[in-house]
Amino acid sequence: MHGYSGDKQAYLTRLRRVEGQIRGLQRMVDEDAYCIDVLTQVSAATRALQAVALGLLEDHISHCVADAVSSGGPEAQEKIKEASAAIARLVRS
Amino acid sequence: MHGYSGDKQAYLTRLRRVEGQIRGLQRMVDEDAYCIDVLTQVSAATRALQAVALGLLEDHISHCVADAVSSGGPEAQEKIKEASAAIARLVRS
Amino acid sequence: MHGYSGDKQAYLTRLRRVEGQIRGLQRMVDEDAYCIDVLTQVSAATRALQAVALGLLEDHISHCVADAVSSGGPEAQEKIKEASAAIARLVRS
Amino acid sequence: MHGYSGDKQAYLTRLRRVEGQIRGLQRMVDEDAYCIDVLTQVSAATRALQAVALGLLEDHISHCVADAVSSGGPEAQEKIKEASAAIARLVRS
Repeated sequence: MHGYSGDKQAYLTRLRRVEGQIRGLQRMVDEDAYCIDVLTQVSAATRALQAVALGLLEDHISHCVADAVSSGGPEAQEKIKEASAAIARLVRS
Repeated sequence: MHGYSGDKQAYLTRLRRVEGQIRGLQRMVDEDAYCIDVLTQVSAATRALQAVALGLLEDHISHCVADAVSSGGPEAQEKIKEASAAIARLVRS
Repeated sequence: MHGYSGDKQAYLTRLRRVEGQIRGLQRMVDEDAYCIDVLTQVSAATRALQAVALGLLEDHISHCVADAVSSGGPEAQEKIKEASAAIARLVRS
Repeated sequence: MHGYSGDKQAYLTRLRRVEGQIRGLQRMVDEDAYCIDVLTQVSAATRALQAVALGLLEDHISHCVADAVSSGGPEAQEKIKEASAAIARLVRS
Protein backbone atom coordinates (compact mmCIF):
# COMPACT_ATOMS: atom_id res chain seq x y z
CA MET A 1 0.00 0.00 0.00
CA HIS A 2 1.26 3.39 -0.94
CA GLY A 3 0.10 6.98 -0.74
CA TYR A 4 -1.86 6.81 -3.97
CA SER A 5 -3.41 3.36 -3.45
CA GLY A 6 -6.79 4.76 -2.40
CA ASP A 7 -7.04 6.69 -5.66
CA LYS A 8 -5.44 4.10 -7.91
CA GLN A 9 -8.33 3.98 -10.38
CA ALA A 10 -8.42 7.78 -10.66
CA TYR A 11 -4.66 7.88 -11.39
CA LEU A 12 -5.00 5.12 -14.00
CA THR A 13 -7.80 7.06 -15.68
CA ARG A 14 -5.70 10.23 -15.75
CA LEU A 15 -2.66 8.38 -17.14
CA ARG A 16 -4.81 6.75 -19.83
CA ARG A 17 -6.01 10.22 -20.79
CA VAL A 18 -2.38 11.40 -21.07
CA GLU A 19 -1.66 8.33 -23.20
CA GLY A 20 -4.55 9.40 -25.45
CA GLN A 21 -3.03 12.89 -25.70
CA ILE A 22 0.34 11.40 -26.75
CA ARG A 23 -1.38 9.23 -29.38
CA GLY A 24 -3.23 12.35 -30.56
CA LEU A 25 0.15 14.06 -30.92
CA GLN A 26 1.41 11.22 -33.13
CA ARG A 27 -1.71 11.55 -35.29
CA MET A 28 -1.14 15.33 -35.58
CA VAL A 29 2.50 14.86 -36.63
CA ASP A 30 1.54 12.08 -39.03
CA GLU A 31 -1.11 14.30 -40.66
CA ASP A 32 1.28 17.28 -40.88
CA ALA A 33 -0.60 19.49 -38.41
CA TYR A 34 0.71 23.02 -37.96
CA CYS A 35 3.79 23.15 -35.68
CA ILE A 36 2.23 25.60 -33.23
CA ASP A 37 -0.88 23.43 -32.84
CA VAL A 38 1.36 20.43 -32.09
CA LEU A 39 3.25 22.53 -29.51
CA THR A 40 0.01 23.62 -27.85
CA GLN A 41 -0.93 19.95 -27.41
CA VAL A 42 2.54 19.09 -26.08
CA SER A 43 2.09 21.83 -23.45
CA ALA A 44 -1.34 20.44 -22.52
CA ALA A 45 0.04 16.90 -22.13
CA THR A 46 2.98 18.21 -20.07
CA ARG A 47 0.61 20.06 -17.74
CA ALA A 48 -1.57 16.95 -17.38
CA LEU A 49 1.51 14.89 -16.45
CA GLN A 50 2.67 17.53 -13.96
CA ALA A 51 -0.81 17.51 -12.38
CA VAL A 52 -0.55 13.72 -11.92
CA ALA A 53 2.86 14.23 -10.30
CA LEU A 54 1.54 16.92 -7.93
CA GLY A 55 -1.31 14.62 -6.88
CA LEU A 56 1.06 11.69 -6.26
CA LEU A 57 3.34 13.95 -4.26
CA GLU A 58 0.54 15.21 -2.01
CA ASP A 59 -0.66 11.63 -1.44
CA HIS A 60 2.91 10.55 -0.73
CA ILE A 61 3.44 13.28 1.89
CA SER A 62 0.00 12.63 3.44
CA HIS A 63 0.64 8.92 3.83
CA CYS A 64 4.20 7.63 3.48
CA VAL A 65 5.99 10.71 4.87
CA ALA A 66 3.37 11.36 7.58
CA ASP A 67 3.46 7.70 8.69
CA ALA A 68 7.26 7.80 8.97
CA VAL A 69 7.05 11.02 11.01
CA SER A 70 4.32 9.60 13.28
CA SER A 71 6.27 6.43 14.04
CA GLY A 72 9.07 8.74 15.13
CA GLY A 73 12.00 6.69 13.88
CA PRO A 74 15.11 7.93 12.08
CA GLU A 75 13.42 6.97 8.83
CA ALA A 76 11.32 10.17 8.87
CA GLN A 77 14.21 12.44 7.93
CA GLU A 78 15.20 10.05 5.15
CA LYS A 79 11.68 10.07 3.71
CA ILE A 80 11.63 13.88 3.75
CA LYS A 81 14.99 14.05 1.95
CA GLU A 82 13.70 11.60 -0.64
CA ALA A 83 10.47 13.57 -1.20
CA SER A 84 12.46 16.82 -1.47
CA ALA A 85 14.67 15.28 -4.16
CA ALA A 86 11.52 14.22 -6.08
CA ILE A 87 10.16 17.79 -5.78
CA ALA A 88 13.47 19.15 -7.13
CA ARG A 89 13.35 16.79 -10.12
CA LEU A 90 9.79 17.93 -10.81
CA VAL A 91 10.60 21.64 -10.57
CA ARG A 92 13.53 21.19 -12.96
CA SER A 93 11.73 19.06 -15.53
CA MET B 1 4.91 20.99 -45.29
CA HIS B 2 5.91 22.28 -41.90
CA GLY B 3 9.10 22.87 -39.99
CA TYR B 4 9.25 19.31 -38.66
CA SER B 5 8.26 17.52 -41.88
CA GLY B 6 11.84 16.52 -42.73
CA ASP B 7 12.15 14.76 -39.37
CA LYS B 8 8.63 13.39 -39.16
CA GLN B 9 9.70 9.77 -38.61
CA ALA B 10 12.14 10.78 -35.87
CA TYR B 11 9.38 12.73 -34.06
CA LEU B 12 6.94 9.83 -34.39
CA THR B 13 9.57 7.49 -32.91
CA ARG B 14 10.15 9.85 -29.98
CA LEU B 15 6.43 10.24 -29.34
CA ARG B 16 5.92 6.47 -29.44
CA ARG B 17 8.67 6.18 -26.84
CA VAL B 18 6.87 8.74 -24.63
CA GLU B 19 3.65 6.73 -25.13
CA GLY B 20 5.58 3.67 -23.92
CA GLN B 21 6.72 5.64 -20.85
CA ILE B 22 3.10 6.59 -20.07
CA ARG B 23 1.98 2.97 -20.41
CA GLY B 24 4.88 1.99 -18.16
CA LEU B 25 3.55 4.48 -15.61
CA GLN B 26 0.12 2.85 -15.73
CA ARG B 27 1.73 -0.53 -15.12
CA MET B 28 3.69 0.87 -12.17
CA VAL B 29 0.55 2.37 -10.58
CA ASP B 30 -1.40 -0.82 -11.28
CA GLU B 31 1.31 -2.93 -9.59
CA ASP B 32 1.54 -0.54 -6.61
CA ALA B 33 5.07 0.66 -7.31
CA TYR B 34 6.62 2.96 -4.71
CA CYS B 35 5.36 6.58 -5.09
CA ILE B 36 8.84 8.05 -5.49
CA ASP B 37 9.68 5.59 -8.28
CA VAL B 38 6.46 6.56 -10.07
CA LEU B 39 7.38 10.25 -9.66
CA THR B 40 10.87 9.65 -11.07
CA GLN B 41 9.27 8.13 -14.17
CA VAL B 42 6.80 11.02 -14.47
CA SER B 43 9.77 13.44 -14.44
CA ALA B 44 11.52 11.38 -17.14
CA ALA B 45 8.40 11.38 -19.36
CA THR B 46 7.95 15.13 -18.81
CA ARG B 47 11.55 15.79 -19.83
CA ALA B 48 11.14 13.62 -22.94
CA LEU B 49 8.02 15.58 -23.92
CA GLN B 50 9.77 18.91 -23.32
CA ALA B 51 12.66 17.73 -25.52
CA VAL B 52 10.18 16.97 -28.33
CA ALA B 53 8.71 20.46 -27.89
CA LEU B 54 12.15 22.12 -28.01
CA GLY B 55 12.96 20.25 -31.23
CA LEU B 56 9.65 21.23 -32.84
CA LEU B 57 10.22 24.83 -31.83
CA GLU B 58 13.71 24.98 -33.34
CA ASP B 59 12.41 23.41 -36.57
CA HIS B 60 9.50 25.86 -36.59
CA ILE B 61 11.78 28.89 -36.22
CA SER B 62 14.24 27.51 -38.81
CA HIS B 63 11.52 26.97 -41.39
CA CYS B 64 8.12 28.62 -40.86
CA VAL B 65 9.36 31.74 -39.05
CA ALA B 66 12.49 32.12 -41.23
CA ASP B 67 10.41 31.75 -44.42
CA ALA B 68 7.96 34.42 -43.27
CA VAL B 69 10.88 36.74 -42.43
CA SER B 70 12.59 36.06 -45.79
CA SER B 71 9.47 36.81 -47.80
CA GLY B 72 9.39 40.13 -45.97
CA GLY B 73 5.64 40.51 -45.61
CA PRO B 74 3.71 41.71 -42.54
CA GLU B 75 3.18 38.06 -41.67
CA ALA B 76 6.69 37.77 -40.20
CA GLN B 77 5.88 39.74 -37.06
CA GLU B 78 2.71 37.70 -36.59
CA LYS B 79 4.65 34.43 -36.82
CA ILE B 80 7.18 35.68 -34.25
CA LYS B 81 4.39 36.67 -31.84
CA GLU B 82 2.81 33.25 -32.29
CA ALA B 83 6.11 31.44 -31.68
CA SER B 84 6.76 33.61 -28.60
CA ALA B 85 3.36 32.68 -27.17
CA ALA B 86 4.19 28.99 -27.71
CA ILE B 87 7.53 29.47 -25.91
CA ALA B 88 5.70 31.13 -23.01
CA ARG B 89 3.24 28.22 -22.73
CA LEU B 90 6.19 25.81 -22.70
CA VAL B 91 8.12 27.72 -20.03
CA ARG B 92 5.03 27.85 -17.81
CA SER B 93 4.04 24.19 -18.22
CA MET C 1 10.52 30.05 14.76
CA HIS C 2 10.04 28.47 11.38
CA GLY C 3 11.53 25.66 9.35
CA TYR C 4 14.33 27.81 7.98
CA SER C 5 15.21 29.66 11.18
CA GLY C 6 18.25 27.49 11.90
CA ASP C 7 19.71 28.42 8.50
CA LYS C 8 18.54 32.01 8.40
CA GLN C 9 22.00 33.46 7.75
CA ALA C 10 22.65 30.99 4.92
CA TYR C 11 19.34 31.94 3.26
CA LEU C 12 20.08 35.64 3.63
CA THR C 13 23.49 35.11 2.01
CA ARG C 14 21.93 33.23 -0.90
CA LEU C 15 19.25 35.87 -1.40
CA ARG C 16 21.86 38.64 -1.32
CA ARG C 17 23.73 36.73 -4.04
CA VAL C 18 20.52 36.56 -6.14
CA GLU C 19 20.09 40.31 -5.56
CA GLY C 20 23.62 40.76 -6.90
CA GLN C 21 22.70 38.70 -9.97
CA ILE C 22 19.65 40.91 -10.60
CA ARG C 23 21.77 44.05 -10.25
CA GLY C 24 24.28 42.46 -12.66
CA LEU C 25 21.41 41.96 -15.11
CA GLN C 26 20.53 45.66 -14.90
CA ARG C 27 24.15 46.55 -15.62
CA MET C 28 24.19 44.20 -18.61
CA VAL C 29 21.00 45.71 -20.06
CA ASP C 30 22.28 49.21 -19.35
CA GLU C 31 25.55 48.48 -21.17
CA ASP C 32 23.74 46.85 -24.12
CA ALA C 33 25.06 43.33 -23.52
CA TYR C 34 24.14 40.73 -26.12
CA CYS C 35 20.55 39.42 -25.64
CA ILE C 36 21.61 35.79 -25.34
CA ASP C 37 24.17 36.64 -22.63
CA VAL C 38 21.44 38.49 -20.70
CA LEU C 39 19.14 35.46 -21.08
CA THR C 40 21.86 33.10 -19.81
CA GLN C 41 22.13 35.25 -16.67
CA VAL C 42 18.35 35.35 -16.24
CA SER C 43 18.34 31.53 -16.34
CA ALA C 44 21.13 31.41 -13.74
CA ALA C 45 19.25 33.79 -11.41
CA THR C 46 16.04 31.80 -11.88
CA ARG C 47 17.81 28.56 -10.98
CA ALA C 48 19.37 30.20 -7.91
CA LEU C 49 15.91 31.39 -6.77
CA GLN C 50 14.40 27.94 -7.36
CA ALA C 51 17.21 26.40 -5.30
CA VAL C 52 16.36 28.75 -2.42
CA ALA C 53 12.70 27.69 -2.76
CA LEU C 54 13.58 23.98 -2.72
CA GLY C 55 15.66 24.50 0.42
CA LEU C 56 12.88 26.41 2.16
CA LEU C 57 10.41 23.70 1.20
CA GLU C 58 12.53 20.90 2.60
CA ASP C 59 13.06 22.84 5.84
CA HIS C 60 9.33 23.55 6.00
CA ILE C 61 8.39 19.88 5.62
CA SER C 62 11.11 18.80 8.10
CA HIS C 63 9.90 21.20 10.76
CA CYS C 64 6.47 22.80 10.37
CA VAL C 65 4.76 19.90 8.58
CA ALA C 66 6.51 17.19 10.63
CA ASP C 67 5.63 19.00 13.89
CA ALA C 68 1.96 19.22 12.89
CA VAL C 69 1.96 15.52 12.00
CA SER C 70 3.69 14.57 15.27
CA SER C 71 1.21 16.48 17.40
CA GLY C 72 -1.47 14.46 15.64
CA GLY C 73 -4.14 17.14 15.43
CA PRO C 74 -6.40 17.95 12.48
CA GLU C 75 -3.94 20.68 11.55
CA ALA C 76 -1.56 18.16 9.94
CA GLN C 77 -3.72 17.59 6.86
CA GLU C 78 -4.14 21.34 6.46
CA LYS C 79 -0.37 21.89 6.57
CA ILE C 80 0.16 19.19 3.94
CA LYS C 81 -2.46 20.77 1.65
CA GLU C 82 -0.77 24.14 2.08
CA ALA C 83 2.70 22.74 1.31
CA SER C 84 1.31 20.92 -1.75
CA ALA C 85 -0.17 24.16 -3.07
CA ALA C 86 3.24 25.84 -2.62
CA ILE C 87 4.91 22.98 -4.53
CA ALA C 88 2.34 23.38 -7.35
CA ARG C 89 3.06 27.14 -7.57
CA LEU C 90 6.78 26.36 -7.76
CA VAL C 91 6.41 23.71 -10.45
CA ARG C 92 4.29 26.05 -12.55
CA SER C 93 6.51 29.13 -12.18
CA MET D 1 22.10 47.84 -30.65
CA HIS D 2 20.30 44.69 -29.67
CA GLY D 3 16.78 43.33 -29.83
CA TYR D 4 15.79 44.91 -26.52
CA SER D 5 17.47 48.29 -27.01
CA GLY D 6 14.23 50.03 -27.95
CA ASP D 7 12.69 48.96 -24.62
CA LYS D 8 15.80 49.31 -22.47
CA GLN D 9 14.15 51.59 -19.91
CA ALA D 10 11.16 49.27 -19.57
CA TYR D 11 13.46 46.28 -18.96
CA LEU D 12 15.49 48.24 -16.41
CA THR D 13 12.28 49.17 -14.58
CA ARG D 14 11.14 45.54 -14.53
CA LEU D 15 14.53 44.32 -13.29
CA ARG D 16 14.55 46.97 -10.54
CA ARG D 17 11.14 45.69 -9.49
CA VAL D 18 12.51 42.13 -9.32
CA GLU D 19 15.43 43.46 -7.26
CA GLY D 20 12.86 44.98 -4.91
CA GLN D 21 11.12 41.61 -4.65
CA ILE D 22 14.43 39.92 -3.76
CA ARG D 23 15.12 42.55 -1.09
CA GLY D 24 11.58 42.02 0.18
CA LEU D 25 12.40 38.31 0.47
CA GLN D 26 15.47 39.11 2.58
CA ARG D 27 13.33 41.24 4.85
CA MET D 28 10.77 38.45 5.20
CA VAL D 29 13.45 35.89 6.11
CA ASP D 30 15.09 38.35 8.47
CA GLU D 31 11.76 38.98 10.23
CA ASP D 32 10.97 35.24 10.41
CA ALA D 33 7.99 35.35 8.07
CA TYR D 34 6.04 32.13 7.66
CA CYS D 35 7.81 29.69 5.23
CA ILE D 36 4.82 29.40 2.91
CA ASP D 37 4.55 33.19 2.60
CA VAL D 38 8.26 33.35 1.71
CA LEU D 39 7.73 30.61 -0.89
CA THR D 40 4.79 32.47 -2.42
CA GLN D 41 7.02 35.51 -2.89
CA VAL D 42 9.83 33.38 -4.37
CA SER D 43 7.32 32.04 -6.93
CA ALA D 44 6.19 35.60 -7.75
CA ALA D 45 9.81 36.76 -8.25
CA THR D 46 10.55 33.71 -10.39
CA ARG D 47 7.54 34.42 -12.58
CA ALA D 48 8.58 38.07 -12.95
CA LEU D 49 12.09 36.99 -14.01
CA GLN D 50 10.68 34.48 -16.50
CA ALA D 51 8.45 37.21 -17.96
CA VAL D 52 11.53 39.40 -18.49
CA ALA D 53 13.24 36.46 -20.22
CA LEU D 54 10.22 35.83 -22.49
CA GLY D 55 10.19 39.51 -23.48
CA LEU D 56 13.93 39.53 -24.22
CA LEU D 57 13.54 36.37 -26.27
CA GLU D 58 10.72 37.79 -28.40
CA ASP D 59 12.72 40.99 -28.98
CA HIS D 60 15.79 38.92 -29.84
CA ILE D 61 13.91 36.83 -32.44
CA SER D 62 12.19 39.94 -33.87
CA HIS D 63 15.46 41.77 -34.33
CA CYS D 64 18.73 39.82 -34.13
CA VAL D 65 17.41 36.53 -35.54
CA ALA D 66 15.15 38.18 -38.16
CA ASP D 67 18.03 40.43 -39.31
CA ALA D 68 20.34 37.42 -39.74
CA VAL D 69 17.62 35.60 -41.70
CA SER D 70 16.92 38.66 -43.89
CA SER D 71 20.59 39.15 -44.79
CA GLY D 72 20.51 35.53 -45.93
CA GLY D 73 24.00 34.53 -44.83
CA PRO D 74 25.04 31.29 -43.12
CA GLU D 75 24.85 33.15 -39.82
CA ALA D 76 21.05 32.77 -39.73
CA GLN D 77 21.11 29.07 -38.83
CA GLU D 78 23.72 29.76 -36.15
CA LYS D 79 21.54 32.47 -34.59
CA ILE D 80 18.54 30.11 -34.57
CA LYS D 81 20.58 27.36 -32.87
CA GLU D 82 21.77 29.87 -30.28
CA ALA D 83 18.23 31.13 -29.59
CA SER D 84 16.97 27.54 -29.33
CA ALA D 85 19.64 26.75 -26.75
CA ALA D 86 18.55 29.81 -24.75
CA ILE D 87 14.92 28.64 -24.92
CA ALA D 88 15.98 25.18 -23.68
CA ARG D 89 17.85 26.71 -20.71
CA LEU D 90 14.76 28.74 -19.88
CA VAL D 91 12.37 25.77 -20.08
CA ARG D 92 14.66 23.73 -17.82
CA SER D 93 15.26 26.45 -15.21
